Amino acid sequence: MGKSYLELVNECDKFPYYADNPAFYTEHLKNYHFFKVSGCDAILGYILNSSVEKFQFPEDCWAVDPVNRTVTLVTPPNATPKQRSDLIAKTLADTVKRGDFEILKGWRNEMYPVYGPSGEFLLEMERCASPLFGIVTYGVHATCYVEDEKGLRIWVPRRARTKQTYPGMLDNSVAGGMSTGEPPSECIIRESMEEASLPEDVVKANAVPTGCITYFYVRGERAGGESGLMQPEVEYIYDIKLDASIIPKPCDDEVEDFRLYTVEETKKALANGEFKPNCSLVLIDFFIRHGILTPENEPDYLEILARMHRRLEFPTASHCSR
Amino acid sequence: MGKSYLELVNECDKFPYYADNPAFYTEHLKNYHFFKVSGCDAILGYILNSSVEKFQFPEDCWAVDPVNRTVTLVTPPNATPKQRSDLIAKTLADTVKRGDFEILKGWRNEMYPVYGPSGEFLLEMERCASPLFGIVTYGVHATCYVEDEKGLRIWVPRRARTKQTYPGMLDNSVAGGMSTGEPPSECIIRESMEEASLPEDVVKANAVPTGCITYFYVRGERAGGESGLMQPEVEYIYDIKLDASIIPKPCDDEVEDFRLYTVEETKKALANGEFKPNCSLVLIDFFIRHGILTPENEPDYLEILARMHRRLEFPTASHCSR
Repeated sequence: MGKSYLELVNECDKFPYYADNPAFYTEHLKNYHFFKVSGCDAILGYILNSSVEKFQFPEDCWAVDPVNRTVTLVTPPNATPKQRSDLIAKTLADTVKRGDFEILKGWRNEMYPVYGPSGEFLLEMERCASPLFGIVTYGVHATCYVEDEKGLRIWVPRRARTKQTYPGMLDNSVAGGMSTGEPPSECIIRESMEEASLPEDVVKANAVPTGCITYFYVRGERAGGESGLMQPEVEYIYDIKLDASIIPKPCDDEVEDFRLYTVEETKKALANGEFKPNCSLVLIDFFIRHGILTPENEPDYLEILARMHRRLEFPTASHCSR
Repeated sequence: MGKSYLELVNECDKFPYYADNPAFYTEHLKNYHFFKVSGCDAILGYILNSSVEKFQFPEDCWAVDPVNRTVTLVTPPNATPKQRSDLIAKTLADTVKRGDFEILKGWRNEMYPVYGPSGEFLLEMERCASPLFGIVTYGVHATCYVEDEKGLRIWVPRRARTKQTYPGMLDNSVAGGMSTGEPPSECIIRESMEEASLPEDVVKANAVPTGCITYFYVRGERAGGESGLMQPEVEYIYDIKLDASIIPKPCDDEVEDFRLYTVEETKKALANGEFKPNCSLVLIDFFIRHGILTPENEPDYLEILARMHRRLEFPTASHCSR
């Protein structure tokens, strides 16, 4: 007996829900401090109390309130995103030097954005620090597939055995994190070339945005760095239907190879836990939208759909000017 | 300026969220009693306090607890669904006679099911009583569409001006409530014939289940009956791609006519508030899955997706034997 689809969802959407047990949820929240910035009411992320204790927040620009359990970046209320980001960068640089956090050893020189209640850009920080602050992170994931007389088949890459995170596991056809300032439609084009050698014109002609999945991940050992860090995530989803003549190929050393999986082979690999956790969700979403998983063959259909579209407790991005 | 898509979602998903304002939510819940049955811990629905006051629950089979705010159908713990349903039927028959509730004047002789925590069938009750108990109701909604050299167009019916609920408003191509014992795939075939005169073989060949939408509706005036009653809903979604030669036609007097709307015409009618509220959501979901609404043209993309897939506070159905 392999893993059920709901079990795969549970591995990604791990943070408790208030409605399931209000008393437990309220108690559980006490394990965290709330990350805030001056001039903005919203809670931007959850920081583990154990991280707050270890983190030497410089008092000139951080206020730690142990009663309300807040960690606030203190600036003039009308500070610019650059001012906030610079202060965080300086704090992180000092923290890296002290070597207190395993997760900061995975420095990537990639900036992740944080948004305010109206989807406005508030600040950015180094990618590897995001789980320390528990901020929402964004990515694009695409399922490349072929549908012809042989049925529907999915292009599945295997991650390099040397990769820092989830080495050797199966992945979505194209997947990558969204850095500051990069809209999803550009990110999917860049990643499709970088990860699958798919030319821009092919992606532009065939990639269809079909929604997003959202879940509240709590990092385990395979993710690298400290366990128990928060990672609420938004993944913008694309379907890319390809002619059988177009064959994705690794472009760097992050991917070992691509194989065309039948639906049955994909299901088997999912049940075996061979996919990176959040990639399982993208395939489950694909299966539901394409009528492969149905209300009558999947007992947890409703719970899965709700859990994969979790309404996060934090403000999220808007990539559209109003 | 017409209604935004998020405003249309707000009209359907009206019950507050804990995370938005914990104090308000906790206070707001005090307006309701929780509907329960003996032997099952789960809350099956919310009953307005004003309904509890007016409802003369017979003491031999109902326990009203004003402290914990519960209304419990009292039976032996191992009662059968039929035993529970019979008790409720008797209570409702007596209540109808007293004429205390406007909503019970819309009696339909149609039974709606209530499920327990594992998706098991617990009981059924007359459809028009479901908002009094605030139980989850289920339906199927299909978007019939044509996609050819003229682009994508959607079959849109107008509800008869004489219909009891939402008269004269625009509707989804096919939509209907699911009675006890009818799985979604059978319901969509029956409703497609009853509402759009689509033959069974056409529906079987072309209907693809593509997910479900869930939201917590609070009934207003246009819904008929008392205002403020609870209606948490699950709608199973189908896409039915039709050849341009197949033309849906009204089969009874519930539908006035069908017209083929372009995407632009559909968008305009949505913004004008011409669609029945939950039908708007089905079209928004269709637009998102088909890449018509994207992260870059819809500012509320993430909020809309999460709100249309609300994780309901109540147990929901499983139409699949484990």
